[in-house]
Amino acid sequence: MKIAGKHYRTIWPIGCDAVEVIDQTKLPHEFATMVLRSAEDCARAIKQMIVRGAPLIGATAAYGIALAMREDASDAALDRAHDVLLETRPTAVNLRWALKRMCDALRNHAREERTAIAWREAANICDEDVETCRSIGEHGLKILRDAAAKKSGTLNILTHCNAGWLACVDWGTALAPIYMAHDAGIALHVWVDETRPRNQGASLTAFELGGHGVKHTIIADNAGGHYMQAGDVDLCIVGTDRVTANGDVANKIGTYLKALAAHDNNIPFYVALPSSTIDWTLSSGREIPIEERSADELLKMTGRLPGGGLATVEIAAPGSPAANPGFDVTPARLVTGLITERGTCAATPEGLRSLFPK
Amino acid sequence: MKIAGKHYRTIWPIGCDAVEVIDQTKLPHEFATMVLRSAEDCARAIKQMIVRGAPLIGATAAYGIALAMREDASDAALDRAHDVLLETRPTAVNLRWALKRMCDALRNHAREERTAIAWREAANICDEDVETCRSIGEHGLKILRDAAAKKSGTLNILTHCNAGWLACVDWGTALAPIYMAHDAGIALHVWVDETRPRNQGASLTAFELGGHGVKHTIIADNAGGHYMQAGDVDLCIVGTDRVTANGDVANKIGTYLKALAAHDNNIPFYVALPSSTIDWTLSSGREIPIEERSADELLKMTGRLPGGGLATVEIAAPGSPAANPGFDVTPARLVTGLITERGTCAATPEGLRSLFPK
Repeated sequence: MKIAGKHYRTIWPIGCDAVEVIDQTKLPHEFATMVLRSAEDCARAIKQMIVRGAPLIGATAAYGIALAMREDASDAALDRAHDVLLETRPTAVNLRWALKRMCDALRNHAREERTAIAWREAANICDEDVETCRSIGEHGLKILRDAAAKKSGTLNILTHCNAGWLACVDWGTALAPIYMAHDAGIALHVWVDETRPRNQGASLTAFELGGHGVKHTIIADNAGGHYMQAGDVDLCIVGTDRVTANGDVANKIGTYLKALAAHDNNIPFYVALPSSTIDWTLSSGREIPIEERSADELLKMTGRLPGGGLATVEIAAPGSPAANPGFDVTPARLVTGLITERGTCAATPEGLRSLFPK
Repeated sequence: MKIAGKHYRTIWPIGCDAVEVIDQTKLPHEFATMVLRSAEDCARAIKQMIVRGAPLIGATAAYGIALAMREDASDAALDRAHDVLLETRPTAVNLRWALKRMCDALRNHAREERTAIAWREAANICDEDVETCRSIGEHGLKILRDAAAKKSGTLNILTHCNAGWLACVDWGTALAPIYMAHDAGIALHVWVDETRPRNQGASLTAFELGGHGVKHTIIADNAGGHYMQAGDVDLCIVGTDRVTANGDVANKIGTYLKALAAHDNNIPFYVALPSSTIDWTLSSGREIPIEERSADELLKMTGRLPGGGLATVEIAAPGSPAANPGFDVTPARLVTGLITERGTCAATPEGLRSLFPK
């Protein structure tokens, strides 16, 4: 997608020495990129959320393996890079998927071939992610088109966190159908959940939608239920960090509350995902590890000062502790459908198997 | 309640010339008070949320009438003060209740008596609020005692926004039972919803609980559902700005989402209120006007700079609009019980009438 008229992906190789990423911790205040030269750089970028979003985490981890192979193509180095990258974020399963795919591609090849293979495989993962997101967008577009046809006036969509192109390599998952619907001339408006504590909605989703000219309004995470009761939300679409075999959905903390409100108001609640997000090894969302993040994310806030420049301020009562779980699990019963690159299915074991038989 | 060992109410008269209030917009960063000398001062304090919380809004409005009478005790001045104060906040009904009570007390008295009567009546409203909150606390304490008896270990209570002593004259509504349970030696811990966009939880409730030595943890508004799913919440208590005759509850935006999550996880969800919060004229929460507040409350954030001093920063994507409804309505079906000064009742017309027959 474009920033100020120029097309970007969220991650791209620089020769065969390094990759460059958009530093998402600086958005929306500043557009900056960062060069990653090693597996450790990639691990740090994932952990510090310089890159975030399940698909982009996977892509960055893949390049992390490729960069590790440049330094040392031994099995031990491969295992070490795998482990360092895997432990960065516990909830997103694309990370594990991408690392396994890289290791599988490399394991049975001679050391001298590994760098080239790894570099190519990481690039494939990125290109496939773009294609996957485009397919998700097309399948989601059908849903938006149907919903728009059923009403007069603007279609109101609510989304939580950022599952746009900044969370992927390009296009996005939850936002891909929105971009395509906008481009197809469907009149739509997006309610953007602020998404505390890291504000990915207010900072990234709003930034993306604004950049593409999509009409949107930032709201407090608290407000979505009220707008649903008032009839001002036609449909919800969110991304996900892990879907279990029964259709349970782990996503950014607070997703569950919006799914409950959508259910209470008979509003369709869709989850958009590449199939690499499906964890076939878990039978229920209760088994998904939930990342506990720093209390500082809740207690401090960074923003632009009136005179220019950025400042970080402490916002809560001094001395009060905080807890900060990063994700929650939305039970499959609250999910209307899973929008994947192969089409949309019910959030059930049967639904998932109908699209992914093996 | 106490701040740094000294007992305070949230509002108190200074002679017969003025009232003094705690400036709640400065908390938790700074403890400051403000002197209000006229009905206009009181209206401004309510509108700017220097004072907030349904009971305290009512008390401040009552003193606003008293201050107006000092200047001009005519019927026209009474009507003018009534109207100026009534239009400050549309959702809380205690405001209307307190203004009506003041006008009823004054209307049939000679002008020369009105100042003294008004001053006394406003003081009565404050004293009665303290007594009412104490009764709410005692009725709520029974519920907490029963809940604590049913489990081993700490009782975990979740609350939203601030319905503590800072929202009232003293004690609080939702927090009164918590203070009493704490004082009675019941082991408890409070999950404090941050309560975006104005952060009354992180700034006021955490400040209050910390000041009284009650164990608590600030969480993002997004996190409550997750903790309920995990079995880490035994009970919810919130305040309210208006309860309709059928038991529907208007309260701070986001309350509805927590009530849905409590219901989904079989967790009791209580609402604590003085009976002045009941709007017998409305048969359903759908009729309650919902205040739309400034987008700036969402887009800007004030906090403490590392080097000392305060700063306000802009946090969202530049140019993105925001919407900011202040309240939502929790349907009576999601409310386990209404804790009032007369006892606890079901959130139904019959339940309310059992405590308030006429």
